[in-house]
Amino acid sequence: MSSNKIVLGIDIGGTNTEAGLVNFDGEILHRGTIPTRGRGPDFMGYLNALSSFLKEMLSKIPDADLCGIGIGAPNGNFHNGSIEYAPNLEWEGIIPVCKLMSEKFPGIPIQLTNDANAAALGEMIFGAARGYKDFVTITLGTGVGSGIVSNGQLVYGHDGFAGELGHTTVYPNGRLCGCGRYGCIEAYLSASGLVKTALELMVKYRTSSILGDIPPNKLTSKDIYEGAIVGDWLAQEVFRQAGETMGLKLADVVATLSPQAIFFVGGVTKAGDILLDPIRQSMERHLMPIFKNKVKILPSGLPGIDSAILGAAALVIKEIQNQQKK
Amino acid sequence: MSSNKIVLGIDIGGTNTEAGLVNFDGEILHRGTIPTRGRGPDFMGYLNALSSFLKEMLSKIPDADLCGIGIGAPNGNFHNGSIEYAPNLEWEGIIPVCKLMSEKFPGIPIQLTNDANAAALGEMIFGAARGYKDFVTITLGTGVGSGIVSNGQLVYGHDGFAGELGHTTVYPNGRLCGCGRYGCIEAYLSASGLVKTALELMVKYRTSSILGDIPPNKLTSKDIYEGAIVGDWLAQEVFRQAGETMGLKLADVVATLSPQAIFFVGGVTKAGDILLDPIRQSMERHLMPIFKNKVKILPSGLPGIDSAILGAAALVIKEIQNQQKK
Repeated sequence: MSSNKIVLGIDIGGTNTEAGLVNFDGEILHRGTIPTRGRGPDFMGYLNALSSFLKEMLSKIPDADLCGIGIGAPNGNFHNGSIEYAPNLEWEGIIPVCKLMSEKFPGIPIQLTNDANAAALGEMIFGAARGYKDFVTITLGTGVGSGIVSNGQLVYGHDGFAGELGHTTVYPNGRLCGCGRYGCIEAYLSASGLVKTALELMVKYRTSSILGDIPPNKLTSKDIYEGAIVGDWLAQEVFRQAGETMGLKLADVVATLSPQAIFFVGGVTKAGDILLDPIRQSMERHLMPIFKNKVKILPSGLPGIDSAILGAAALVIKEIQNQQKK
Repeated sequence: MSSNKIVLGIDIGGTNTEAGLVNFDGEILHRGTIPTRGRGPDFMGYLNALSSFLKEMLSKIPDADLCGIGIGAPNGNFHNGSIEYAPNLEWEGIIPVCKLMSEKFPGIPIQLTNDANAAALGEMIFGAARGYKDFVTITLGTGVGSGIVSNGQLVYGHDGFAGELGHTTVYPNGRLCGCGRYGCIEAYLSASGLVKTALELMVKYRTSSILGDIPPNKLTSKDIYEGAIVGDWLAQEVFRQAGETMGLKLADVVATLSPQAIFFVGGVTKAGDILLDPIRQSMERHLMPIFKNKVKILPSGLPGIDSAILGAAALVIKEIQNQQKK
């Protein structure tokens, strides 16, 4: 692969947009950030600023051969290249991002998907899932997302919105979720879900916990992690219960998709084996016999700071690979 | 397509093996049945009888161009062409069916998968899913099986055993399932699951029901269906509860895979809209907003008597199509 071939990876977040120039070995040659918010409800205001910013970045590599632009965004729909009704962004309705972007970069292939799918592709092209054809990536952070790869291809589904494992039911009539449903796994495994579990345990048990010194509005999943590290029983129990819940759901995921491995990415997964060990134990306990001791539970192989940019870059590299196969 | 091109479709059931010569339009030109049981634990006894039977059938079309043999079987593994530890068959361990069969039919492509996957392929090639690229087929009978098609390809998973939706949890710590787990959807939606629900309702309510005239050991899902048809409240409530349970699970299936449609096949689905209407209502109630009013719940488009043979035939036709694409 000639070394001047690059792609642009763009991650549109609720607060900031991160972009990077990435070569086919997964090295980020240049990177930068601009605010996503603050230019009002018209997408064009944002797009004009973004494309100036990207062209400035591209000018730093004069002989670059730009092969494509990959974009990860909340509610990004791969099939039509649009952001659809994203609750955390300023633009309402359906925004045809790829179409508008291609007017700024004529002739350059542009692909868009949601951030969880981009994370799965990043893992497959540059991370710990290299060589894997069947795996699932689960993102634990403000929400719970997932990207599913089956037989080497991302599962987008009929309308482009497959992979919403965060909004599958784990406990019928359980906790109210932000999506309006009850008992979604997101209501238990997101950062705020862990905080709710800590409060529940304070109600249920008479044990004292250092987490009780923090006002509930300020309690974070990081506090719970730090409590678990120093041996606070209640903080550790939060992760044991989170592992039990996630493992129960993963047994379903395995029976449905039979993946080789399940990767965990995102802020909450910084807890490492304090979270992953209870997940492994619970999943194995709930698996059907034919699936036991086959499926790996692993942390992401990508550095957290780069994973969103690399995932977006991987989206367009994957499409280039698919085209070459045809 | 020249009219003498045919495939052999074979469905290995617990009691009988059905086979048919199928042309590429899905017409069964000849069909027959031999017992699966009664030749002891050595697979070769059965295989010798089966291959004589098949060659006899093939001799009825002297100019036939046999393009392949497709086999549906319990615990059939597509990846290695083996039946693995099937609890309802006489042969123990791993049986390399395709390898042994190809010694009887040298040079003929032979494919094997489980019966639920074959049903999904039959639906795609010959039935109501023609033209669909993302759909799920759910088999309701003695057990609950499923076949998942994503982007036009069957989801086999890493080890070939994907699509075990019947053994995903719908109610944690719920009914004991035949697989040893608790709360599987199969424990509620299989024929015997419906009977258990009828008995539960007899305990719970003081209403009289004609189902109470039948000894529990003799009560079948057909009795419940017939009770529902003549207006028996308890029999109807069995289907309402089954629909509620299945709809809750299907909301998860949709969030995970985003299919265009979900097809129902198998004996229990003869209940038609008495079962499918409660499923539709429950699924819509449990879906996330972005998925509402998008996913069709439909009966199979294949005649029940032919669906197993056509499914097995579709397996090998699908592989021929995939080869031609490459």
